[in-house]
Amino acid sequence: MEVFAVILAGGSGTRFWPASRRARPKQLLAMAPGVEQSLIAGTVTRIAPICDANHVLIATGQALLQPTRAALPDLPPEAFLGEPLARNTAPCIGWATALIQRRNPEALVMVLPSDHHIADVAAFRSTLERALASASAGPITTIGVAPSRPETGYGYIEAGDAVGEGVRLVARFVEKPNRERAEQYVQSGRHYWNSGMFFFRASEMRRAIDRHMPELANGLARIDRAATGGPEAEQRETASVFEALASVSIDYGVMEKTAPLHVVPGDFGWSDLGSWQSAWELSPKDERGNAAPRSAVLVDARNNLVTDLRQGSSKTIALLGVDNLCVVETDDALLIMPRERGEDVRQVVDELQRAGRGAVL
Amino acid sequence: MEVFAVILAGGSGTRFWPASRRARPKQLLAMAPGVEQSLIAGTVTRIAPICDANHVLIATGQALLQPTRAALPDLPPEAFLGEPLARNTAPCIGWATALIQRRNPEALVMVLPSDHHIADVAAFRSTLERALASASAGPITTIGVAPSRPETGYGYIEAGDAVGEGVRLVARFVEKPNRERAEQYVQSGRHYWNSGMFFFRASEMRRAIDRHMPELANGLARIDRAATGGPEAEQRETASVFEALASVSIDYGVMEKTAPLHVVPGDFGWSDLGSWQSAWELSPKDERGNAAPRSAVLVDARNNLVTDLRQGSSKTIALLGVDNLCVVETDDALLIMPRERGEDVRQVVDELQRAGRGAVL
Repeated sequence: MEVFAVILAGGSGTRFWPASRRARPKQLLAMAPGVEQSLIAGTVTRIAPICDANHVLIATGQALLQPTRAALPDLPPEAFLGEPLARNTAPCIGWATALIQRRNPEALVMVLPSDHHIADVAAFRSTLERALASASAGPITTIGVAPSRPETGYGYIEAGDAVGEGVRLVARFVEKPNRERAEQYVQSGRHYWNSGMFFFRASEMRRAIDRHMPELANGLARIDRAATGGPEAEQRETASVFEALASVSIDYGVMEKTAPLHVVPGDFGWSDLGSWQSAWELSPKDERGNAAPRSAVLVDARNNLVTDLRQGSSKTIALLGVDNLCVVETDDALLIMPRERGEDVRQVVDELQRAGRGAVL
Repeated sequence: MEVFAVILAGGSGTRFWPASRRARPKQLLAMAPGVEQSLIAGTVTRIAPICDANHVLIATGQALLQPTRAALPDLPPEAFLGEPLARNTAPCIGWATALIQRRNPEALVMVLPSDHHIADVAAFRSTLERALASASAGPITTIGVAPSRPETGYGYIEAGDAVGEGVRLVARFVEKPNRERAEQYVQSGRHYWNSGMFFFRASEMRRAIDRHMPELANGLARIDRAATGGPEAEQRETASVFEALASVSIDYGVMEKTAPLHVVPGDFGWSDLGSWQSAWELSPKDERGNAAPRSAVLVDARNNLVTDLRQGSSKTIALLGVDNLCVVETDDALLIMPRERGEDVRQVVDELQRAGRGAVL
């Protein structure tokens, strides 16, 4: 069965401002420690042994098409899908699946986030292969990451009986838990982080959409029909269909309503790189816990994260007597905050927006 | 009696790095809140009603002559004295006094620091006039600043009996006290901060040097003699004399050994602007205690000092959830530290020196 990849690259979050910008979101940045490559290029490289480059689709927004193409110069132009409107993951995955089906009705599809960090690539590939095998033989399959801490910021998958070597039934999806419950989940041996990776036969996903999301199914059918009239008709119809669709996640629209589902537990040093805090956790640090450029001068300073993204930088950054700070410098902005305040960067972004200074966002 | 001013501008401290540099020390910076003028230009402006511009001498080091001239474009070239070597204040003041005596043996001299902040200029001028009157009629006179807090970083002057309206005898000079003693001094009504301002008839200072600093007296006599042979001979002899002199402060070499001395108590919003902490104290602040450019974005941030000295800056500086920080940004350096760690900036400077990065100092 031919394997296709759909890489979700529509994100335009603000949690990494000023490193990330509207036109340069996190997936286009080299956030992985010690790696020059952007996160999205790393994602494509990681799956290369499993998925041909001409079977890779990058799903992003119209506004991000140009910079996303620039970040992946080795992919052909037809690899890039520009969603006419952001409607969350279900319409996006449904649309990509329909496009893949036109190329190969029996294709096997994997949906992957574009902006995560994976430390153990070999273990990741084994997990992918197991998930693909599960999906090719049966139900829609997801990967569950073995939780290493009682994280309250992720959704969890509760696993049921084993259905094969390293494959279990999904018992249910669990919303972000409170701290107490998260601690139980870490102990349980049955709960996994929902990594947002999905594996399915294209035909299986279409059937699930037909059953659980009739409006989306109808829209996809209209796009398929319009496509017979040529690319312009197809594009017009796609815009019109997306315009009318509700924003629904694939988790809510399909996964939580579909049974049976399979989950493949995996342990490959996964991080969603959701904040500066996790960037610091993943970075190499000096003996005092500072992740900083070599040129930084650190006196009596501990556990700081210093990111210098200025072009052709030769600036001297000196930290004296400060701990646990996150310092991000770009050519036109400087952010200083406690490392653990990453969730609140949006307050700065909101403030800039309010002040009519959106140009720096 | 003609009044001459000697403004001491040899300082090249490191406490304001990265704002201050070897070639751009504090007195050449606009450190006073809301003022575009450099501190030294402010000093000259402040005394203008009392001292003709062509009676002003600026004493600085050879290396600082050029930038100091540039900071005071309205002064004639002969106003600038470039010390061949830094030998502390006694040789410098003795030399300047000798030069003034050649122009007017009966001159009245005031010696002023170049890098202090004075909030109440009218009160300052009244105090100067009283000190000049005291000095013209009698002994060397100094100004004592009424202490507003138990400062342990300054020397104090203990005053004795009154010798006239607002003029008292100096009982003794006191080294930097400990906290307990400093608190007693604030209460005593007899102790004043030693502001480093001195007023004297030139002939009186020369007599005091003759008595208490014979080597300096001898050196000044040699320079006087050499000057009769023209400026080149004078310059050579000055270099040779300074080379041989010990580094001695005017306080230690003359003031502490001379009696009687007068002190004129003054209260004119004086600050020696000795650290970023005092710069913050003097700056206008928002309702949360932040002294920052208007363009800064401050979210949940209190009592910070943000100084942006970049050329043509339009950088967005954002502080989120941090308190009591000092942030100084220049084109080639960024310093972040707790406000009260200003005394330790030298550690950063030492570290840069050690690392062979003196170019940024």
